[in-house]
Amino acid sequence: MPVLTLADLQAHLGGQIRGEAHVRLTAAASLEQAGPGQLSFLVSARHLDKARASRAGALIVPANLDEALPLPCLAVDNPHAAFARAVALLHPEPVPAPGIHPAAVVDPSARVDATARLGPGVVVGAEAEIGADTLVHPGCVIGPGARIGRHCLLHPRVVVQHGCRVGDRVILHPGCVIGGDGFGLAWEKDDGGHWSKVPQVGRVILEDDVEVGANTTIDRGALDDTVVEQGAKLDNLIQIAHNCRIGRHTAIAACVGIAGSTRIGAWCQIGGAAMIIGHLDICDRVTVSAGTFVAKDIREPGTYTSVQPLMRHEDWLRNAAHLRHLDRLAARVRALEKSSDKDEER
Amino acid sequence: MPVLTLADLQAHLGGQIRGEAHVRLTAAASLEQAGPGQLSFLVSARHLDKARASRAGALIVPANLDEALPLPCLAVDNPHAAFARAVALLHPEPVPAPGIHPAAVVDPSARVDATARLGPGVVVGAEAEIGADTLVHPGCVIGPGARIGRHCLLHPRVVVQHGCRVGDRVILHPGCVIGGDGFGLAWEKDDGGHWSKVPQVGRVILEDDVEVGANTTIDRGALDDTVVEQGAKLDNLIQIAHNCRIGRHTAIAACVGIAGSTRIGAWCQIGGAAMIIGHLDICDRVTVSAGTFVAKDIREPGTYTSVQPLMRHEDWLRNAAHLRHLDRLAARVRALEKSSDKDEER
Amino acid sequence: MPVLTLADLQAHLGGQIRGEAHVRLTAAASLEQAGPGQLSFLVSARHLDKARASRAGALIVPANLDEALPLPCLAVDNPHAAFARAVALLHPEPVPAPGIHPAAVVDPSARVDATARLGPGVVVGAEAEIGADTLVHPGCVIGPGARIGRHCLLHPRVVVQHGCRVGDRVILHPGCVIGGDGFGLAWEKDDGGHWSKVPQVGRVILEDDVEVGANTTIDRGALDDTVVEQGAKLDNLIQIAHNCRIGRHTAIAACVGIAGSTRIGAWCQIGGAAMIIGHLDICDRVTVSAGTFVAKDIREPGTYTSVQPLMRHEDWLRNAAHLRHLDRLAARVRALEKSSDKDEER
Repeated sequence: MPVLTLADLQAHLGGQIRGEAHVRLTAAASLEQAGPGQLSFLVSARHLDKARASRAGALIVPANLDEALPLPCLAVDNPHAAFARAVALLHPEPVPAPGIHPAAVVDPSARVDATARLGPGVVVGAEAEIGADTLVHPGCVIGPGARIGRHCLLHPRVVVQHGCRVGDRVILHPGCVIGGDGFGLAWEKDDGGHWSKVPQVGRVILEDDVEVGANTTIDRGALDDTVVEQGAKLDNLIQIAHNCRIGRHTAIAACVGIAGSTRIGAWCQIGGAAMIIGHLDICDRVTVSAGTFVAKDIREPGTYTSVQPLMRHEDWLRNAAHLRHLDRLAARVRALEKSSDKDEER
Repeated sequence: MPVLTLADLQAHLGGQIRGEAHVRLTAAASLEQAGPGQLSFLVSARHLDKARASRAGALIVPANLDEALPLPCLAVDNPHAAFARAVALLHPEPVPAPGIHPAAVVDPSARVDATARLGPGVVVGAEAEIGADTLVHPGCVIGPGARIGRHCLLHPRVVVQHGCRVGDRVILHPGCVIGGDGFGLAWEKDDGGHWSKVPQVGRVILEDDVEVGANTTIDRGALDDTVVEQGAKLDNLIQIAHNCRIGRHTAIAACVGIAGSTRIGAWCQIGGAAMIIGHLDICDRVTVSAGTFVAKDIREPGTYTSVQPLMRHEDWLRNAAHLRHLDRLAARVRALEKSSDKDEER
Repeated sequence: MPVLTLADLQAHLGGQIRGEAHVRLTAAASLEQAGPGQLSFLVSARHLDKARASRAGALIVPANLDEALPLPCLAVDNPHAAFARAVALLHPEPVPAPGIHPAAVVDPSARVDATARLGPGVVVGAEAEIGADTLVHPGCVIGPGARIGRHCLLHPRVVVQHGCRVGDRVILHPGCVIGGDGFGLAWEKDDGGHWSKVPQVGRVILEDDVEVGANTTIDRGALDDTVVEQGAKLDNLIQIAHNCRIGRHTAIAACVGIAGSTRIGAWCQIGGAAMIIGHLDICDRVTVSAGTFVAKDIREPGTYTSVQPLMRHEDWLRNAAHLRHLDRLAARVRALEKSSDKDEER
């Protein structure tokens, strides 16, 4: 466990120290849980009460906070981002031993950089490449011809299928599958009909700084590639179908499904469990609310929603029945309006 | 395959035997499929017809069943629970060979109890602990410093990330990921904006008797812990985000997503594919219907729902158009009411 | 990379060549991306403009296309299916070395056909069987007594649990779990109540020509079996609960959940993220739209839907409020109708 003073943090993060610069910090914690020797943070004046009551050793606070606090502070422009970097300094992740573990299986034609670390049970296929300082945890399978960049972090049991491309500083969480086959089927009419498989020969391209959550699946393209652009962040249990393109710096929360050939712009935010059908275009800077179903293009930035409000079950039963007859209800209102107009005329 | 008589089962389960106590049983089966030598069960008088027609060797029935049945019965207070225990006795799961398989990789600093069983390809990190009688199937990865309790069952390819805590008698199904990073991002404004990662340094705590389904993901806390309390049962493909707390004896069906920092009470039932947004409080003994979207706190026990009823597509097309104009429709009704009131006044 | 002429393709696919039969082809590509030496295809006259502009080396086109195109064509009855076969010929998937990799762990009592190929890290349990020409990629775990047929393709990190049956020509994508426990719980009333596990002793049966997507989970039956019938195709991140039966040639898109004991007929199409509750019967040739929630039996072929239309968030806020009061709105319309009828009578 590293020990850092507030002055050490300032050297890394910038900002201005208010109070004792040499307080020693060994961990990061929430405002409520932090104790002596622990660093916490305040994003805005909104949680000032909690900050005053905090037993933390020191706080990162917004530069524009006027209030004096009874504990040492580092005042910075973006406290959330600065705290994120402080946490990384205080809590370095455990790293496996350097080199290739004897229980890894690396094809002789693969090119693994001498600074990469491969855990036990890792399998690297023919002609695959793994870049400098990349860490591949136990049980990952890197297919033939796949290329993983530099400074990547592959958590346990990640699969990168043959021929896929992973940029630099990419983080892949446990169980995610990069480059599984897209769901390509051709209908054959004989014997009542059946599906035949359309081979999927495109790749997945993950650009630099992409993060992919646990058990998320990103399918390879049918013919062209599926692309996740630079800096896009994907949470857990997401499905990205073949030939999608996810724009740079777009963040997608857990349980989202995006069907084939849909393009999502840059700087979008897709809420959890949103579902987006195929062959759509969604422009830059769109927010899709959690649980929302998107079935048409979105051409204007903004926030879009399509969820049902929660009700007590008995209220729902009463209300939901009318959803089946809204058209009839609207027609009845129209009829009343006509008859009312007639009354007016009389 | 064990052979048990009805009297043997009575010794384990209690209850009263009606009819032949020495009938030999080798398997459990449904009422429709059971044949001679097979045990089935009846939860209530509702399926009495099927029970009369059953070819089963014996039945577990409710103690309050008056009806005499033409086959040997064990009458108990809770037939479903008793049958569950009988099935476990008749169908013991296959267990791997005792000890640590030579193709497992265990860090020398890990503490694995002598009675634990580790399959081939299991990887156990530095300082990790695995308790007595725990079974770890092939391909599991236990991270550095993680602790697994006693009598646990880890199915193939489970990941428990560094530092997480798993209680006693916990069952983890294939492919589940305990302690992947939460989706913590800080927004940085330069160059149109991008996300930087907030390191996730909390843990996941799974208390005793928890069960987690296949490919379910439970994220580690950002700073504090994500907790699943004693006896909670989670089905497959569920996402539990960072800092959630799931109450004891709560059951969550498949495909549910729960966003960050939400607390769910004890004895709740969350239906399949329900989606619950972050930072909510749901009290004890709440039932959320399948497919329901929860976007606000629930403070009263009861059943809550928010789904659309199914329609033929052509009916849906007609009705759904009005959902976009409900506000206008309500305004039109209000206008009609006003004009009708005026008519009354006249 | 194989090199094939259009005449070679005709020998495999039938159809009639229009233009140069000896053009050499080394890859398949989309109409937009294809260059010299690459094969593309046209499903109907609709994309004729793109076909005319294409730089492809040759095209597969519909037999009933009258139009002459300026590049060599193979005219066939079903261009999509023919192209699928051509892609497979031009892009053979990389295959692991023949035989059992020394880093695979096969129980001595297992029967692995001499022509099967098992990658490193594969674990095969006692009494399991693997058929001729079947390919098992790295990290797969085949449980005790499981049987895998001939010509199957198991991608990396697939789990087939004990006793399950997989037919011939089945494709299992990375991370899918066949035969995890169903979510079977019995309620015990003591101490406020808790769940006890109901052991799941049925199997999963995947019939011939089934395909299962990445990280999809199919649970074993509680007592009887869970069955996916011949030729059914399942995409990624799908949950099939215990005791379901999925009919032959039914296609299920990603993120679908199907709860326990539901039966889906043959030749159905289930759209992405559809959710189907338990104990339902859905007849043959039903299409369920993406995002749809199915809570009752479907007895007539056709298309069924239950989604909310997308709105700008501010419109949604205005409209959604009325969903809670639809019953009241309908009552108000009824009251207006009555008072209007009275007016008429006057």
